[in-house]
Amino acid sequence: MDKKMNLTMLTDFYEITMANGYFEAGMTEDIAYFDMFFRRVPDGGGYAIMAGLEQLIDYLKNLKFTEEDIEYLRSKNFFCEEFLKYLRNFEFRCDVWAVPEGTPIFPHEPIITVRGPVMQAQFIETMILLTINHQSLIATKTNRIVRAAEGRAVMEFGTRRAHGGDAAIYGARAAYIAGAAGTACAIADRDYGVKALGTMAHSWVQMFPDEYTAFKKYAEIYPTNCTLLVDTYNVLKSGVPAAIKVFQELKPANMGIRIDSGDITYLTKKARKMLDEAGLQDCKIVVSNSLDEYIIRDVILEGACIDSFGVGERLITAKSEPVFGGVYKLAALETNGELIPKIKISENVEKITNPGFKNLYRLYDKETGKVRGDVMTIAGEVISEDEPYELFDPNAIWKRTKVENFTVKNLQVPIFKEGKCVYESPSIEEIRAYCKEQIGTLWDETLRFENPQTYYVDLSQKMWDMKHELLKGQGRIKE
Amino acid sequence: MDKKMNLTMLTDFYEITMANGYFEAGMTEDIAYFDMFFRRVPDGGGYAIMAGLEQLIDYLKNLKFTEEDIEYLRSKNFFCEEFLKYLRNFEFRCDVWAVPEGTPIFPHEPIITVRGPVMQAQFIETMILLTINHQSLIATKTNRIVRAAEGRAVMEFGTRRAHGGDAAIYGARAAYIAGAAGTACAIADRDYGVKALGTMAHSWVQMFPDEYTAFKKYAEIYPTNCTLLVDTYNVLKSGVPAAIKVFQELKPANMGIRIDSGDITYLTKKARKMLDEAGLQDCKIVVSNSLDEYIIRDVILEGACIDSFGVGERLITAKSEPVFGGVYKLAALETNGELIPKIKISENVEKITNPGFKNLYRLYDKETGKVRGDVMTIAGEVISEDEPYELFDPNAIWKRTKVENFTVKNLQVPIFKEGKCVYESPSIEEIRAYCKEQIGTLWDETLRFENPQTYYVDLSQKMWDMKHELLKGQGRIKE
Repeated sequence: MDKKMNLTMLTDFYEITMANGYFEAGMTEDIAYFDMFFRRVPDGGGYAIMAGLEQLIDYLKNLKFTEEDIEYLRSKNFFCEEFLKYLRNFEFRCDVWAVPEGTPIFPHEPIITVRGPVMQAQFIETMILLTINHQSLIATKTNRIVRAAEGRAVMEFGTRRAHGGDAAIYGARAAYIAGAAGTACAIADRDYGVKALGTMAHSWVQMFPDEYTAFKKYAEIYPTNCTLLVDTYNVLKSGVPAAIKVFQELKPANMGIRIDSGDITYLTKKARKMLDEAGLQDCKIVVSNSLDEYIIRDVILEGACIDSFGVGERLITAKSEPVFGGVYKLAALETNGELIPKIKISENVEKITNPGFKNLYRLYDKETGKVRGDVMTIAGEVISEDEPYELFDPNAIWKRTKVENFTVKNLQVPIFKEGKCVYESPSIEEIRAYCKEQIGTLWDETLRFENPQTYYVDLSQKMWDMKHELLKGQGRIKE
Repeated sequence: MDKKMNLTMLTDFYEITMANGYFEAGMTEDIAYFDMFFRRVPDGGGYAIMAGLEQLIDYLKNLKFTEEDIEYLRSKNFFCEEFLKYLRNFEFRCDVWAVPEGTPIFPHEPIITVRGPVMQAQFIETMILLTINHQSLIATKTNRIVRAAEGRAVMEFGTRRAHGGDAAIYGARAAYIAGAAGTACAIADRDYGVKALGTMAHSWVQMFPDEYTAFKKYAEIYPTNCTLLVDTYNVLKSGVPAAIKVFQELKPANMGIRIDSGDITYLTKKARKMLDEAGLQDCKIVVSNSLDEYIIRDVILEGACIDSFGVGERLITAKSEPVFGGVYKLAALETNGELIPKIKISENVEKITNPGFKNLYRLYDKETGKVRGDVMTIAGEVISEDEPYELFDPNAIWKRTKVENFTVKNLQVPIFKEGKCVYESPSIEEIRAYCKEQIGTLWDETLRFENPQTYYVDLSQKMWDMKHELLKGQGRIKE
């Protein structure tokens, strides 16, 4: 959790086995290209959100094998001494490109590309996947929940149900990037600037003789920020009346009530009416209790009177689909300075990789600012804004459309150059604003919860031709 | 991830808000009792497995507010200076009892009990829940998978899909406790003694001109432990034949092939036949690829020829139900030395808490060693092994049964006494063995995947009477 901590050994054991293998095979200078990409947006959504890059950069900057690591590896009786010596003097030498955090991303796109000695480029696979998979998962889920809330604040409340400390902290960070208003997690505030808030548990109420006394004490201590939990005994018969009495007597600023159980729609409508009749139109209503985007959408449709949502376990675990299936695949080799694209075929057409060292471009309509689609090209191919560009569906190449009057953006930016970091992460507020702005460039059809329009992720003609040449060659190998 | 690191601020902000509230309300010496319990076993299973206690103990031992923490809290303009001074001199003073790791646990049982100044006992809620919820979730899920594998080894392969580093590391630890044979995660091996293993990725195969060359190189480098990944191009037409050729030529020890895609049953049956016909009866078959207990049970039923399973994302995220819903509720107060039991009622009968300071006993049949049931009593109540004991269902009190010839075990053990740790965690091997032994005391009806028999978690007569007195009282408050 210390950003500077050495997590070098947080890796799959086979990365080390393979590194030693390449070393013993005399392949220390072989250069390889890897892409990270994912194949499906969780929950059947139309897009995912890139997150976790800052923590990945921290990891790569701090790559270092300590004497303790070397000693551990030696104890496995698996690795040669020369290799251990190489690790002791390990110096990171890879180039890394990545799509910046907060960017909407789509299946099959190279969201991270690594070029470098195969021993190194392979070794960093585990942490690339671990970090980006986790935070992109939570960012993607949170953004669904935030959209369902239609402008109402969504607070991340999941620390106690997160899968360990990192899941709580970096989950809170990812949630904030994707539009959450804040978190319950204090350390995420201290270390990552994710605004933390929180008021009381049921036990606070139970510690006093009755709700009125508990609320009054709280309002006296926190006169400027006073949200009272009203469902310890009975929301409408005891909680709300006691809160109203305290609000009228002490007139705290930023009044609120929180309801954490029961029928949200019924209770919030009734509570709103009681508050309004007591002249407390300013009092906000916060709800929590196993919420997600579906429940939020439903209670809003039913006319529940809610000002903000506290969303816990279903956000912080991405409960409906807790796996972001990013993978890291070999894309090319360099042999004697020549680039050899590599493809991984599969019975399952979806699993065939896109070969080669690539660029990833996004085209935006010049007038509306909305996206037109993304294009993967062979690295170095340029898409000129000065002439029409023909997009085509790589799986149905007769479907073609000409794009005119567009701007084009190279989505990958350089992160490391020969092992040196050349990128400064934006502040979390900048990432959050960028995320919101970029989601604003997507079409409504992409934003839909269910059955969204599939976003165009196309190949350039050169890229398509190269891929199909390779497929023909691989087809022969398969016979 | 450093076991000694100070994670004091990894807490919900409201714990601090409430602590300051109790401080300002003059309640610094008020003594409270809290229980952690859960309400449902994930996946509809018959039991869960306690895990995470060792990490919780580390957290509690290292509770300390640094100057940085104090500075951060001051910056929130929410807390009084006297309280910040209290935190600066914070000394943990609570008593903690817990059910040891590896124990099968059941809904509504107090798996952790804390007694101490309410400010402190409340403050530690978040990390108690975070730590125990996470590891118990993964241990419970893993044990289902291990049982489905019917004696075949299950390796934990999920690091890359875990929810951050802690989820990978402590998930591997919890999986091992619950019966996994090892992990892919190197750091979990280095720091927690969870045996790590791993061989090669598809990229290893792709780095060489063909599979035969890739396999041969690997077998030369690792002649004593040689598992070859045979599905990069075509399992039966190219992968298995190449592996057979290499095995016959180089005769490595501990031969294996791994299949990571395609129809597991079909491919493993065919591969087994090919290996056997080549005289390689010793060669093991390992499968991976989005496995869980259901798929494993199915492929075994179908007669797949598998020696061990690598289980990744669905284990490390507990994908089918990624939330372990442990809660932490006020159970009692001490006022002038008198113990006042507290109850939290709810519309939902399942959510009504069990009040008071308790003991949790497990009764075992003396002859068979099998469990008879668990009983929650008022603290200090003794269940004598020398006379018959009448169990009854707390929700159907006419269902009564007399138990004779039994042994009784107090499931909670003291962990902290007035803030000092009085417990030494067993080694991970001891915990793992204890877990296996204790699961062996459960009835087959409890072990069932679907619709298991509900395990008896009963109340003593005194406990039941006390609870119902309180319920009657609360009923009045609700009117």
